[in-house]
Amino acid sequence: MTYLVKPVGHVESSLRSLDDAPRQGDEGAPTAWLVLDAAVAPALEAIGVGDELVVLTWLHEAQRDQLRVHPRGDLSRPVVGVFATRAPSRPNPIGLHTVRVLAIDGSRVQVADLEAIDGTPLVDIKPALGPLDSR
Amino acid sequence: MTYLVKPVGHVESSLRSLDDAPRQGDEGAPTAWLVLDAAVAPALEAIGVGDELVVLTWLHEAQRDQLRVHPRGDLSRPVVGVFATRAPSRPNPIGLHTVRVLAIDGSRVQVADLEAIDGTPLVDIKPALGPLDSR
Repeated sequence: MTYLVKPVGHVESSLRSLDDAPRQGDEGAPTAWLVLDAAVAPALEAIGVGDELVVLTWLHEAQRDQLRVHPRGDLSRPVVGVFATRAPSRPNPIGLHTVRVLAIDGSRVQVADLEAIDGTPLVDIKPALGPLDSR
Repeated sequence: MTYLVKPVGHVESSLRSLDDAPRQGDEGAPTAWLVLDAAVAPALEAIGVGDELVVLTWLHEAQRDQLRVHPRGDLSRPVVGVFATRAPSRPNPIGLHTVRVLAIDGSRVQVADLEAIDGTPLVDIKPALGPLDSR
């Protein structure tokens, strides 16, 4: 059994290639836009400036047959299973990014500290659930 | 452009139906097993008891055409966009579950507080990245 991911939009960013991208959003990632397809714009309703979101992306340049990696690509560190790392190359290369909303313009959402590169497909957006969140 | 999710295993749980399942893992969810396919077992290497993981699942009983919902299914609350909620029904129904590892037995990982029902496909496993994590 397999399942089909239909992207709901894409990332618009100044990061053009994986070589430019930091490994995590809090390691110097830029402000970027989540550009939602017009058809799914109603799904954004009630999201506001200042909200903390978890953005799921499809890391479309990742390899899917890699099961063990050097953590953070550091060859001096011993190889471990990809599920013990945040390496983009993994069987189902879904990226998880915690970001804060800076602005909303129709079906475009500006967020801080997103390490995904320009053109990365958007899979899902969820509210972060932290101790500060009211459910 | 669409992408194919190939599950890496499934959840084994005493939760048999959505009616039994709590809405979040910390709302009374049981201990459960992540049963990985033997082929991907090497991807678990270096995961240990006590680790905090983020488990991604495919919520296979969810509807995908729902863009606005009552939060937590509560009809007394105004309808909002699904991206402002953790509702399972959404365009790409991927579940996010933060769990702690209780035991590991080959390609089976026992975890606390998982609200996914028995048979839910596993998409990915990542280490949680919190202030307590060493990267």
